[in-house]
Amino acid sequence: MAEVRANKKVVFKDFITGFPKESDMEVVTTDTVRLKVPEGSTAVLLKNLYLSCDPYMRSRMSKHDEASYVPDFVPGSVITGFGVGKVVDSSHPDFKVGDFVWGTTGWEEYSLITAPEMLFKIRYTDVPLSYYTGLLGMPGLTAYAGFHEICSPKNGEYVFVSAASGAVGQLVGQFARLMGCYVVGSAGSDEKVSLLKNKFGFDEAFNYKKEPDLNAALKRLFPEGIDIYFENVGGLMLDAVLSNMRNHGRIAVCGMISQYNLEKPEGVHNLFYLITKRIRMDGFLVFDFYHKYPQFEEITMQYIKDGKINYVEDAAEGLENAPAALVGLFAGRNVGKQLVVVSHE
Amino acid sequence: MAEVRANKKVVFKDFITGFPKESDMEVVTTDTVRLKVPEGSTAVLLKNLYLSCDPYMRSRMSKHDEASYVPDFVPGSVITGFGVGKVVDSSHPDFKVGDFVWGTTGWEEYSLITAPEMLFKIRYTDVPLSYYTGLLGMPGLTAYAGFHEICSPKNGEYVFVSAASGAVGQLVGQFARLMGCYVVGSAGSDEKVSLLKNKFGFDEAFNYKKEPDLNAALKRLFPEGIDIYFENVGGLMLDAVLSNMRNHGRIAVCGMISQYNLEKPEGVHNLFYLITKRIRMDGFLVFDFYHKYPQFEEITMQYIKDGKINYVEDAAEGLENAPAALVGLFAGRNVGKQLVVVSHE
Repeated sequence: MAEVRANKKVVFKDFITGFPKESDMEVVTTDTVRLKVPEGSTAVLLKNLYLSCDPYMRSRMSKHDEASYVPDFVPGSVITGFGVGKVVDSSHPDFKVGDFVWGTTGWEEYSLITAPEMLFKIRYTDVPLSYYTGLLGMPGLTAYAGFHEICSPKNGEYVFVSAASGAVGQLVGQFARLMGCYVVGSAGSDEKVSLLKNKFGFDEAFNYKKEPDLNAALKRLFPEGIDIYFENVGGLMLDAVLSNMRNHGRIAVCGMISQYNLEKPEGVHNLFYLITKRIRMDGFLVFDFYHKYPQFEEITMQYIKDGKINYVEDAAEGLENAPAALVGLFAGRNVGKQLVVVSHE
Repeated sequence: MAEVRANKKVVFKDFITGFPKESDMEVVTTDTVRLKVPEGSTAVLLKNLYLSCDPYMRSRMSKHDEASYVPDFVPGSVITGFGVGKVVDSSHPDFKVGDFVWGTTGWEEYSLITAPEMLFKIRYTDVPLSYYTGLLGMPGLTAYAGFHEICSPKNGEYVFVSAASGAVGQLVGQFARLMGCYVVGSAGSDEKVSLLKNKFGFDEAFNYKKEPDLNAALKRLFPEGIDIYFENVGGLMLDAVLSNMRNHGRIAVCGMISQYNLEKPEGVHNLFYLITKRIRMDGFLVFDFYHKYPQFEEITMQYIKDGKINYVEDAAEGLENAPAALVGLFAGRNVGKQLVVVSHE
């Protein structure tokens, strides 16, 4: 008979407005889980190791009348998101017991994945597996595809990255440096600014909370203007950037984390510069670039082996600390990629 | 000795904020002009026939601390803009007396053009020459390049055009219909709406001033959403459009006439849809597409000959009515392309 275990999980309580709070989630252990996939299924059973806290998850905590690009969370059900797991049981031909995978899983100790076609098998286990929540996972692919496919970067161009020490931003900046671009990043603490300059090799960085005038800060750091803006925050920063773009500049719109918890997003007033400077602004979702994953993975693994990329994680230990980790992401408390360690093995 | 004439002209008085008024310009006749180009120059002397009133001219009436994409008007000097003229004298090898040209000229009876390389020689005189202020001139090329180069239209797509009865909008809609697109236009009066449907062949049209809820209007007219938005107005309309775009939609940002006279542009709040719907927003200036003019002219002349394009002009007779015509453009008083007739021959 199959082993049955208690399964600790993080349950989403109800839809919210404004900033998420820890009390919007509940860690429960009452459920039990059979460590076998159902007979006749093509499912896999995962033991979750690492869970990813990502800005897009905020959207799923709000009720949408019309379907959004990702489904809303279900009140009373476990939170889902990207994670890394180990296959404990499988009836799917592509996955066998002991395989490591990354993809969408549950915020719980064990998850039954009924559509494992959506999981990526991890090919390289000589790097920390947690990297597959960031550098080698969805955020990494986001940075890679967003920068190379959307921004059309050229050697020597002037690049600005907001939320630059986060999972995506730290990689965009390094990809840009590897392209021979001049790169400036913004972040919300001096510690993060120091990381940008000393760890990730940004040419310059600034603490946006200490700049009374974002426009002046950008003018100081980009006397020639900005060719490429990798947009992670939105709002006031976007307005300041628009007035500092160069002709034929490109803005890859990846996220707008400063706006996600507002009842009404801030207005952006400087869009007329799109015309006068012939700026292209391109929103994108990483889901449209999954076919690029193998190429991205090869290139990035080589960068890692050659020591050309640095990567900083902020790991919360234990599933019981997952709600605080997710909430902290929206307050900018994380330094580097925020993840949750469910189990190291 | 060369003939000397009085030269009536429209002089720009001083920089403004807010809506332009007729009294911001002055029609004077004190100047005199020699009807000969200076000895040793490569200039041409034009007799101006038709002058174009274009939305971008508003920008030139404000003082810019940093150089904008077009130079500010000079207080006390004649207003300049696109127009059609007849060569009265020339020392430039490409232009001879009697040629008709279009390009940048002065709001006056006679203009000395010292850099005639910037003028286009008119090749077809079997259409009204005033067409070269619109359908066959800068606005026509704007519509053509903006729609075909920026919007990447496909047969059967859903297209929305704002300020749709204006010089550019009426052509974009017709180019879109010729591509087999479904086309809806917005305008500011029932008369214009009727033109859109009955003269220009738009599938649908609406009077935005009569719609209490632009979002609802767009939902009604685009139950499947909008693939392409040709943006001429900005502000509230852009916000409403963003929430009605389809995935992978494209927005060509040509103008934002609703914003030009505001002290501070309206905030746009729905930019997050750029991400969730993977929208591309592209600002452009017609100046970057001048090399496409010969191709555009050939295609459009053929459309005219085949009766495939309709075109409506709103002509103010006499240079003394030019200030009112320009001011009226920003109040939406014109029906069709606004131009000024200086002389019919």
